[in-house]
Amino acid sequence: MSSMCLLRKATKLLLMRQRSQAAAIVGVCRNFGGTASEEEQSKQRGGEQAARSILYGALTAGGIGVGYFIFDYLAQQRLGSDEPSTKSNASSSTVAAPELDDKALARLWHKTARDELPTYALDEVQSHNTVETGIWVTYGLGVYDVTTFVDNHPGGDKILMAAGSAIDPFWAIYQQHNTLQVLELLESYRIGNLAKSDVVSVEDQGSPWANEPKRHALLKPAAERPFNAEPPLGMLAEKFYTPNELFYIRNHLPVPTLQDDDYGLEIEISAGKHAGTAERTLSFEDIKRLPKHTVTAAIMCGGNRRSEMTRVKPVKGLSWGAGAVGNAKWSGARLSDLLVAMGVQPDERLHVIFEGADLDPTAHPYAASIPLSKALDPRGDVILAYEMNDEPLTRDHGFPIRAIVPGVVGARNVKWLTRIVVSDQESDSHWQQNDYKGFSPSTDWDTVDFSLAAAIQAMPVTSAICTPMPDERVRVSGDGHITVRGYAWSGGGRRIVRVDLTADAGATWHVAELEQEDLPDGRHYGWSLWTARIPVKEQQKELEIWAKAVDSAYNVQPESFENIWNLRGVLSNAYHRVKVKLIREAK
Amino acid sequence: MSSMCLLRKATKLLLMRQRSQAAAIVGVCRNFGGTASEEEQSKQRGGEQAARSILYGALTAGGIGVGYFIFDYLAQQRLGSDEPSTKSNASSSTVAAPELDDKALARLWHKTARDELPTYALDEVQSHNTVETGIWVTYGLGVYDVTTFVDNHPGGDKILMAAGSAIDPFWAIYQQHNTLQVLELLESYRIGNLAKSDVVSVEDQGSPWANEPKRHALLKPAAERPFNAEPPLGMLAEKFYTPNELFYIRNHLPVPTLQDDDYGLEIEISAGKHAGTAERTLSFEDIKRLPKHTVTAAIMCGGNRRSEMTRVKPVKGLSWGAGAVGNAKWSGARLSDLLVAMGVQPDERLHVIFEGADLDPTAHPYAASIPLSKALDPRGDVILAYEMNDEPLTRDHGFPIRAIVPGVVGARNVKWLTRIVVSDQESDSHWQQNDYKGFSPSTDWDTVDFSLAAAIQAMPVTSAICTPMPDERVRVSGDGHITVRGYAWSGGGRRIVRVDLTADAGATWHVAELEQEDLPDGRHYGWSLWTARIPVKEQQKELEIWAKAVDSAYNVQPESFENIWNLRGVLSNAYHRVKVKLIREAK
Repeated sequence: MSSMCLLRKATKLLLMRQRSQAAAIVGVCRNFGGTASEEEQSKQRGGEQAARSILYGALTAGGIGVGYFIFDYLAQQRLGSDEPSTKSNASSSTVAAPELDDKALARLWHKTARDELPTYALDEVQSHNTVETGIWVTYGLGVYDVTTFVDNHPGGDKILMAAGSAIDPFWAIYQQHNTLQVLELLESYRIGNLAKSDVVSVEDQGSPWANEPKRHALLKPAAERPFNAEPPLGMLAEKFYTPNELFYIRNHLPVPTLQDDDYGLEIEISAGKHAGTAERTLSFEDIKRLPKHTVTAAIMCGGNRRSEMTRVKPVKGLSWGAGAVGNAKWSGARLSDLLVAMGVQPDERLHVIFEGADLDPTAHPYAASIPLSKALDPRGDVILAYEMNDEPLTRDHGFPIRAIVPGVVGARNVKWLTRIVVSDQESDSHWQQNDYKGFSPSTDWDTVDFSLAAAIQAMPVTSAICTPMPDERVRVSGDGHITVRGYAWSGGGRRIVRVDLTADAGATWHVAELEQEDLPDGRHYGWSLWTARIPVKEQQKELEIWAKAVDSAYNVQPESFENIWNLRGVLSNAYHRVKVKLIREAK
Repeated sequence: MSSMCLLRKATKLLLMRQRSQAAAIVGVCRNFGGTASEEEQSKQRGGEQAARSILYGALTAGGIGVGYFIFDYLAQQRLGSDEPSTKSNASSSTVAAPELDDKALARLWHKTARDELPTYALDEVQSHNTVETGIWVTYGLGVYDVTTFVDNHPGGDKILMAAGSAIDPFWAIYQQHNTLQVLELLESYRIGNLAKSDVVSVEDQGSPWANEPKRHALLKPAAERPFNAEPPLGMLAEKFYTPNELFYIRNHLPVPTLQDDDYGLEIEISAGKHAGTAERTLSFEDIKRLPKHTVTAAIMCGGNRRSEMTRVKPVKGLSWGAGAVGNAKWSGARLSDLLVAMGVQPDERLHVIFEGADLDPTAHPYAASIPLSKALDPRGDVILAYEMNDEPLTRDHGFPIRAIVPGVVGARNVKWLTRIVVSDQESDSHWQQNDYKGFSPSTDWDTVDFSLAAAIQAMPVTSAICTPMPDERVRVSGDGHITVRGYAWSGGGRRIVRVDLTADAGATWHVAELEQEDLPDGRHYGWSLWTARIPVKEQQKELEIWAKAVDSAYNVQPESFENIWNLRGVLSNAYHRVKVKLIREAK
């Protein structure tokens, strides 16, 4: 039986079962499709229509653009390039030129189990993630060995972002894959089926984790419970405003389930001139009735880039890459408007404590504090946010209300905000007192005294190279350059004034072009994206790129992690260094 | 003739001539004495009384304390230590126990030319400033070869601060030298007389430099015209408030001569909501009638520590050591009070231009600007200062009014302030537009475009080791430690939260004790002094100490100068590294 016949049969079977199994397919799509937002999912209803809608939804969701690489491989195929890969030729010969119906059917191939092929568990797929082990990917139910295709991938080594895992979420975003030709090509690499147990998620009914939101499949978890995940670094610098569904998530506890219609925010003035005189509870509508203020702010986890610091010596903490940061437009009520209306006077010794609805096992909420001076500063732009990039906050980002403290470490941007206290003390929470603090490289767990260190507020200057990624093979342009792109940011509203790149260990530095908001220094809370074209030598086959940013106070990044190492692995802002291989077009 | 007889004879001669030559002695004292302030000098009147008053004035002026080392050498001598140096024994044996009269006479020995000894020009003295060349110093008219004494100096290698130059200003401050025993000891090292031509200063009558103030002899000039000088680094960390007469001076042009009684400060609002509506001139008394505000602020030259950066590759600029910084209490009127009273509204696009009375050869004033947001911020603490450490400003520091812009590079703290303009542009002065900006290490004078770089405002975090000094021989304590002391500071009101020291290239770091004001972050404009005790290995004979500071935004210093090098040599804030030799007490 030809593979084409098999596919048709499988597809028919699928369509027959579709009505009764629509719910199961929804489950599959939830796991592999690009339909990230749970709101969208909850709108889906059973039956054929649902299955189709999800299938196509998966191919259109996301909203991240095509990016900067051109899908020239297929163009090459169409023009009859004389250097197509053997495998793709084989593919073309075994798959007949499809009729119109076949086109629709072909879109379901990866939803179909091919009985003649073996079944693989996900961890087996995951173990095939390098050229040495072979590069396997999954798409729907299909398992594919794309090792020989990698060199021909029009997007270059970006395909390696999916090595050992699902390509579904990438394809949902990079929609140039949504053609019959690509689907045919993929199917030609099929080697098996993904085990069903790895397709259907197991819910924790009744546990504190039972009501966790669904997340975008591209958010790569550093931890599942609490959920902590970052997007692929290679995608992070594509958009100035990070798409909500790809914005890193750093939860400390299970996600609480709040409703906006019975939400209440307690505010208590327990210190200062008006201590005890004012206490009130605001409803969600009360907050929305206050003047709406919008601020662009990057939020960064204190542990962003920890995985690089860990290479010096292990630290305690989630192994974040450089993607624990995102840049968004946040809208909500100004905290200063609220506090001033309640009679709070400037007092530099006071603090503002934020408590969330997320509770630890002893029923203590997540909490953190900031100085009152930051909260009252009209240029501080602290807001009680209900929108993120013009959309209501999602549950993972603090629905319905989150504190946004621009320029300050993510941990103080408390989500699911339910209580604010003006106090003469910092928050006594674990996260304020015994976490998110910096120490000398020689301080260890035997000698550490958290009470001696300052709680991180404003973050230091940092930057990261987003593309190329480590070990990526980078095409050198005809005029001998490679293009490098990334982000840079500094806390405290300090604008990035320069990003320097070197590909020869500092012998020559290249100044990047910056993409940033035109906002005054001290209030420049958004990140800066940057692009640099770096010349490379004709014979050069590999190189290491270093990036360092400079902020408006001319603070610079430290060169290496050795001397900023700290036992919690926070403040990991040394030069970002990425080794790549250079490839050149045949002349 | 014994040396004692010679001395007595010389002293008698001096006393006979004293009445007629009092004025000449005043000249000598001005050059070599510790009477730094010109105000003090102008109060001196001729005659014997003046000579004596200056002589003793020289020994009491300054106000810098004894510091942290104990004058244990003389104590040792008194207790009959069994290990005095040969030379000092010799000294004791040749100089007879003095009578009361001799004590007074002995104080004049160094004021006396000894005819039997050769005369040396100052540049010959200056060439003897290392152990290899021999270490010569001068005191008054005397030239002394103290090479063999250096090892026995109770203050250790601090004596080398004066190698090849005058000890007068040091002794004026370190008053433990003011004993007959020390004077006798010094005279025993006498080898000659200083040439008169090097004693009497030559004034530039009629030139723009004719009215330069007299400066403290300890201010070591990086340039004479305009005058730019810093105190010896070894003394800088002795006092939390830098004594006015030792505060570094960075003039860009000749010092103008202003009087407080006909002083006028023009204020012009040329942009913003109230542009053109308000313009006024304030007298000195007008300013003093405004509410008086005091702020502790370190002022640092943008080129501080340039001499270290220069070692990587030459730069354009004065070769500052790490002493182009000082910390003082500044008092005056708040600029924000004044601007608010004149109707100036917050507008983040505007600037405040400061113009001084110091004019360049084309009659353009020195000028610089800061953002209006800094000027209006109640936490910005920008003041029109008329006092420095509770004293009226001296001419070199901007008499009668200077702008103090805490947390911001010295160049914006405009002295001899005569005009303030609220403008929609930064100052168009050379110093704002084409100087005091940072660049990539690969930017050179062929490629530089000053318009692309941000004018330095807030300065980055930095620190310096003040004691020990480079190549100093440091005594190891009985328990195997050395003591290291220095300063640390960051711009923008960011508090120093930690200073780390290492003596083994980063293998182990030691956290210093901080001495700083208890002020909230964001408004912590003063510097921090720090002290660390560092353990050293038993056999170790030399080591290199590195210091790095961390500010409240957890910004750190870069490790080395290579990658922050810039063609103007500003922002030179890499780790401070000092190599020292270790010496141990005999057991």
